[in-house]
Amino acid sequence: MTMDEDERYVHGKPQNSFHKAVNIPDIVVYPRSEEEVSKIVKACNMHKVPIVPYGGATSIEGHTLSLNGGVCIDMTLMNRVKALHVEDMDVVVEPGIGWMELNEYLEPYGLFFPLDPGPGATIGGMCATRCSGSLAVRYGTMRDNVINLKVVLADGEVMKTASRARKSAAGYDLTRLMIGSEGTLGVITGITLRLQKLPQSSVVAMCNFPTIKDAADVAIATMHSGIQVSRVELLDEVQIRAINLANDKNLPEVPTLMFEFVGTEAYAREQTQVVQKIASEHNGSDFVFAEESEEKKELWKIRKEALWACFAMEPNFEAMITDVCVPLSHLAELISRSKKELDASPLTCTVIAHAGDGNFHTVVLFDPTREEQRQEAERLNHFMVHTALSMEGTCTGEHGVGTGKMKYLEKELGIENLWTMKRIKDALDPNNIMNPGKLIPSNVCF
Amino acid sequence: MTMDEDERYVHGKPQNSFHKAVNIPDIVVYPRSEEEVSKIVKACNMHKVPIVPYGGATSIEGHTLSLNGGVCIDMTLMNRVKALHVEDMDVVVEPGIGWMELNEYLEPYGLFFPLDPGPGATIGGMCATRCSGSLAVRYGTMRDNVINLKVVLADGEVMKTASRARKSAAGYDLTRLMIGSEGTLGVITGITLRLQKLPQSSVVAMCNFPTIKDAADVAIATMHSGIQVSRVELLDEVQIRAINLANDKNLPEVPTLMFEFVGTEAYAREQTQVVQKIASEHNGSDFVFAEESEEKKELWKIRKEALWACFAMEPNFEAMITDVCVPLSHLAELISRSKKELDASPLTCTVIAHAGDGNFHTVVLFDPTREEQRQEAERLNHFMVHTALSMEGTCTGEHGVGTGKMKYLEKELGIENLWTMKRIKDALDPNNIMNPGKLIPSNVCF
Repeated sequence: MTMDEDERYVHGKPQNSFHKAVNIPDIVVYPRSEEEVSKIVKACNMHKVPIVPYGGATSIEGHTLSLNGGVCIDMTLMNRVKALHVEDMDVVVEPGIGWMELNEYLEPYGLFFPLDPGPGATIGGMCATRCSGSLAVRYGTMRDNVINLKVVLADGEVMKTASRARKSAAGYDLTRLMIGSEGTLGVITGITLRLQKLPQSSVVAMCNFPTIKDAADVAIATMHSGIQVSRVELLDEVQIRAINLANDKNLPEVPTLMFEFVGTEAYAREQTQVVQKIASEHNGSDFVFAEESEEKKELWKIRKEALWACFAMEPNFEAMITDVCVPLSHLAELISRSKKELDASPLTCTVIAHAGDGNFHTVVLFDPTREEQRQEAERLNHFMVHTALSMEGTCTGEHGVGTGKMKYLEKELGIENLWTMKRIKDALDPNNIMNPGKLIPSNVCF
Repeated sequence: MTMDEDERYVHGKPQNSFHKAVNIPDIVVYPRSEEEVSKIVKACNMHKVPIVPYGGATSIEGHTLSLNGGVCIDMTLMNRVKALHVEDMDVVVEPGIGWMELNEYLEPYGLFFPLDPGPGATIGGMCATRCSGSLAVRYGTMRDNVINLKVVLADGEVMKTASRARKSAAGYDLTRLMIGSEGTLGVITGITLRLQKLPQSSVVAMCNFPTIKDAADVAIATMHSGIQVSRVELLDEVQIRAINLANDKNLPEVPTLMFEFVGTEAYAREQTQVVQKIASEHNGSDFVFAEESEEKKELWKIRKEALWACFAMEPNFEAMITDVCVPLSHLAELISRSKKELDASPLTCTVIAHAGDGNFHTVVLFDPTREEQRQEAERLNHFMVHTALSMEGTCTGEHGVGTGKMKYLEKELGIENLWTMKRIKDALDPNNIMNPGKLIPSNVCF
């Protein structure tokens, strides 16, 4: 526990978010057990003190902001693996463990956890924001990969959401209700995760296209081919320029697709050939693929570090990262319309899409000291959200609502949906202590 | 709308369930649109009249019983396909459409919906009970295959749970909250389903084992091989005897595994070889496989009609179907312990397991005119549920809670979980009109 000003400031400041801090927590606590979390929450509930659960703080929509001061519960000391069940292909962990540390732990057992958000993200935070990443196209999102949760509810009671069976029809799906609830319904204190076997073999491939629409069309055709690609990532020419700059590379600065295929050696290769054929039918060129471990790492590193590469173009700028997602048939149109707007903007903007899911990010770089640049970034964000909503899409594919996306929810989901969320929130957290001011717009009333 | 006694009786009687009807609905209504459902629910809410949503009535845990009379809303006239989006691989349907009719509709487009519960089940009912079936091992359960729902809430308002994007982090997962809520939170009036490409190629295989433990071990080893089998079903020697009787077959009456492998032609064959090797390492014999369409249908028909085959042994009996599910490592032990109990019972019992998921059914045949036989069937059911719960499993893998499994929920999930369910139920249905007396035990109070 600390009331140290610096620590409170660090915890109040959005780490990776373009949202501004308006307040800092009054206190930061570092529980080491579920019992401690329960005691903290009980006390807060009694005195009606706001709580902000805090993990890796890699979320970007203002989820960890302490809008009303109160208690920041930093979960990072609860980072143990409690039980690994190799035969069941599941693992029980505390929320503060990072997904990268977890995968290091799992590797000797031939297992891995197949979600790959930003480095530093913790499993608890990933549950809270319903995160996904580039592998979701094959393995699903956090929603699909959690077997059960332990949750400290607003009254301090500890709830188990489900048994450890992989499948169950026993009651309301409280596991999924908590996943994506962003700390507004409880503090996650334990997680049982589904694991996957490390693939026997994999191939990483890259291909260039004359237009971004060609690239998007190939991503769509790949999904329709029935092939279970494990990654299909789209990068635009500006993003490739950033990568060249940051890594001293010489890649053709054109729209590019990156694929990963996994399976047995023969099957990974067969998939590669199918997609190579699809690409060639859509003006794809320079199809390269790697089967050697070092080569694959090198290719994949480019994608993994894409965000950081952007800062090579504008080192003192901040990034607004957009996150819309649409039904696949609308992706090419969404990207084309967005690109036109982005290219016409004075700001530097790059495109990175998890194209197999219809999930489309842009990195909009702006000078944080210049308000008109922040506003222009906001305008571009609005434009893409509204375009996506007009295509039956969502304002957030994987980054969550936080404070940043609340204003779009009514348009996306309708007021009846917000009423239902509010009724659930009021029922489970009557004193509104759990991460207040996030996810549910404050103007929702019955 | 009808108040005809026969229709009310038919709707009050459990169709496929061993639960006894204690009442019948006062009225049966057949809405043809969401607006009509909304009006019905509004009126019922105003007058505090209980509602039972009714689909194919294939559920077996008493979900459709009219415990308190009231209004039975038969949804089967709302059975249209509203929109098929081939490019997005999704379809928007009304709840009354059956999964088999839907698949007939989809076949010309090269698409299918990959869940296969009992024939006659409707998509709405499958959502309400969070059903799955033999393909869940590859494609997941209803939870994983629904993009969004339209739901008429207890106050008659119509809610959309989510956009049509495949992935979203926009707010509480109300889609998943409704899936498995068994009509206790609202009436489902529209469903957007994820579809799959019909596999290019498939192989069906069968293999015999000296003991049921050997068969279970092979199912487990198959899951661990990293192969994405699309079906792995275990049948015991009694079930095979029933199949022989019903179909005039001569299959070896020993524990048997049935597999399906899908993918490209080469990959389906490669998977078959891997599993054949695994089976041979665990005392498997007579490994046969079929690649021809007719042959495959013939093999698979055996499994599909397994339940009906049981009645060939005892034509005038009823069946109690059990439905526990455990972490995979416990499956062999669970089946072995259960088999000992079943074999010692005077009743005829067969075993059918979705072995890849750890989901294990038995069909317990009893003479409904003899109360001691019903009680013996209940005793066997209890035994298996308690054994599964002692192994961190669930009392219901896919059949749901209804009235039949309520009594096990506190042991499985803990009272804090039941409190949370009750709080949500009270918040969304304050007059307790939505399928009252189901899912949440009536003795849960705060």
